Amino acid sequence: MFSSRTKEISPFVVMQLLQRAQEYERSGKTVVHLEVGEPDFQTAEPIVKAAHAAIDAGRTKYTSASGISDLRQRISAYYQSMGVAVSPNRIMVTSGASGGLTLLAGLLLDPSDRLLITDPGYPCNEVFARLVGAIPKPIAVSAEHRFQPTLASFQAAWCEQTRGALLASPSNPTGTMLSAQDLGDMAAFAQSRQGFLILDEIYQGLHHNEPEYVSGLAVTDDIYVLNSFSKFFGMTGWRLGWVVVPEHAIEPITSLAQNLFISPSAPAQYAALAAFDDDAMTVHKARQQAFVSRARLLSRGLEALGFKIPVAPDGAFYLYVDICRTGMNSTDFCWRLIDEYQVAVTPGADFGTHQAGSHVRFAYTTDEQSIALGLERIGKALQAWGAGQ
Amino acid sequence: MFSSRTKEISPFVVMQLLQRAQEYERSGKTVVHLEVGEPDFQTAEPIVKAAHAAIDAGRTKYTSASGISDLRQRISAYYQSMGVAVSPNRIMVTSGASGGLTLLAGLLLDPSDRLLITDPGYPCNEVFARLVGAIPKPIAVSAEHRFQPTLASFQAAWCEQTRGALLASPSNPTGTMLSAQDLGDMAAFAQSRQGFLILDEIYQGLHHNEPEYVSGLAVTDDIYVLNSFSKFFGMTGWRLGWVVVPEHAIEPITSLAQNLFISPSAPAQYAALAAFDDDAMTVHKARQQAFVSRARLLSRGLEALGFKIPVAPDGAFYLYVDICRTGMNSTDFCWRLIDEYQVAVTPGADFGTHQAGSHVRFAYTTDEQSIALGLERIGKALQAWGAGQ
Repeated sequence: MFSSRTKEISPFVVMQLLQRAQEYERSGKTVVHLEVGEPDFQTAEPIVKAAHAAIDAGRTKYTSASGISDLRQRISAYYQSMGVAVSPNRIMVTSGASGGLTLLAGLLLDPSDRLLITDPGYPCNEVFARLVGAIPKPIAVSAEHRFQPTLASFQAAWCEQTRGALLASPSNPTGTMLSAQDLGDMAAFAQSRQGFLILDEIYQGLHHNEPEYVSGLAVTDDIYVLNSFSKFFGMTGWRLGWVVVPEHAIEPITSLAQNLFISPSAPAQYAALAAFDDDAMTVHKARQQAFVSRARLLSRGLEALGFKIPVAPDGAFYLYVDICRTGMNSTDFCWRLIDEYQVAVTPGADFGTHQAGSHVRFAYTTDEQSIALGLERIGKALQAWGAGQ
Repeated sequence: MFSSRTKEISPFVVMQLLQRAQEYERSGKTVVHLEVGEPDFQTAEPIVKAAHAAIDAGRTKYTSASGISDLRQRISAYYQSMGVAVSPNRIMVTSGASGGLTLLAGLLLDPSDRLLITDPGYPCNEVFARLVGAIPKPIAVSAEHRFQPTLASFQAAWCEQTRGALLASPSNPTGTMLSAQDLGDMAAFAQSRQGFLILDEIYQGLHHNEPEYVSGLAVTDDIYVLNSFSKFFGMTGWRLGWVVVPEHAIEPITSLAQNLFISPSAPAQYAALAAFDDDAMTVHKARQQAFVSRARLLSRGLEALGFKIPVAPDGAFYLYVDICRTGMNSTDFCWRLIDEYQVAVTPGADFGTHQAGSHVRFAYTTDEQSIALGLERIGKALQAWGAGQ
């Protein structure tokens, strides 16, 4: 009755956990939210002001499918400020990074083509491949290689039906970046196979130390880059992102965007014009620092409780934590934690299957006080459960 | 290098015409715009106010993938007010009707499946089918049957690979509605073949006379209905729409929406809550009346110039006009009209191939003064060209 792809989509455990969390909240209990992939900060005031002004000026009509010219120029200038030359023509403003993924899948994949992705990785990636009839092929990535593919594993996974790969740097759920060397090598390998490489950079800007590269575009120009106003720029619910494509892809992706989206949200685009202004950037950078500080608090706390954080993340706002010390399966761990201690975290199962049973993603998208409360409760849980060690 | 679907997408002639129009405007000439499928009215003030309030209240985060519960209830109440019972659970708020089409294509079509559409029809329909690897199969529709399929042509077009059909009522570019009888019969036929029927109702509310039915859902409950806040509710650039699905489709379409969209725009959703309030509805209904009056002005004017409007539209804001009297091909006609007289209209070629060379779509999305100016210029053009009769 429904398409066969609908059978391939597994519901997110975290959605059920979230529902349970809301039930506890309705019953008056305090839940510590360490599961949400959304910054707790409000959209910065300069962006909000720009939105009000745009709406009052009636800027609520369809725009060009590629996005308004001013915004594409601002994004180009943003790259320029980081030392990367990207012409505005190569920038397509999209309805969130989600819209960008739909466009790139539609542009690059035919039915039965294979798309390489990572396991663990962003769980929706495979659904974009399946939307266009393609088949996602996960590369298992592990702590020993910072949860990123090696050139060898990348080459080994690439088969005759492979059309390209979708990698993330920093990645979700692990927060690790691809090394510049590996990124360059993989892009070159993909090209040698007439394939493509998409690099998801939606956590760009949210790094813990000076990153090895500010964008994959500084390493190689021959990739598709996905970005978003959601995370660093704090605009999740506005649904706005962008993709950078090679010159020769501009025409076909523009046609696709005209047909599939008409245009991205106009108020969101005019609001986002202010996202690069100095006053907004000051806010974004202060938040990035807050994430760094939270990461430290949360990782020290979890390590003090005996958890292993196999790889310190380079960025984003996640810790991918090995919970072996509990002797529990990660999904059971998450359910008991929400039910008995009202702490919400996301089991590895939501990000793939490779070592999923022994890993949990902690998102530090809540303030330090809540993180401290979460740690306290987890400590109590471990004690009560007599878990491990 | 790119997917094979990219080769199947023909660029819109109207986009090139629009570009030409903008060049004339930059050079100081006045262009009469009768090509745009977007109301010229601004978003109604009560909706704008609600947007401001929502943004100030920080309602700019991800929402549920199905849309906020309040909005789904309002939409349900809207149907109720028209005498149609639709549970809020069956309503998915989407990123424009475009987002709804992506979801329905992903839900219902596998690669190589056939989807029936009409020719002429909304040009993007076939691209949504191709996005998921399916194959659009146009049914040629003509003036003699009000530019809608008959049950016989519908049945004849349905082959073994056909999974369903996508029809529109009122339709673009012709503005005609399916009769209740035909709609019910086609839905029953699709069901007898284990197929689906999607009814595009994005022009609902913009009718010229009392419509035979307020929504296809009043005729049969066993269809998928597509709707939008863009046209009647005047919210184009906000990118918000909805779909109504049968009970058993709620779970799979929700999973798809979570993966492919995360959520529709939050500010747009909170703004749209006000779209059904009495003060906003008064504005919408006044605009609907303005469209009725413009339709009369434009159709009388064109008929006075000797054009044939083979079918008076039931709604929307388009006239699909037979230009045989000019002896010209419709695409040539459109180019000469913009180049020599700065009137922009859309050739039939943008809506399909069936009788496309003899038809032009006139959109009355501009005020009566501009329509009168357009008519005057077209009259001069016909005289100068010595066109026909």
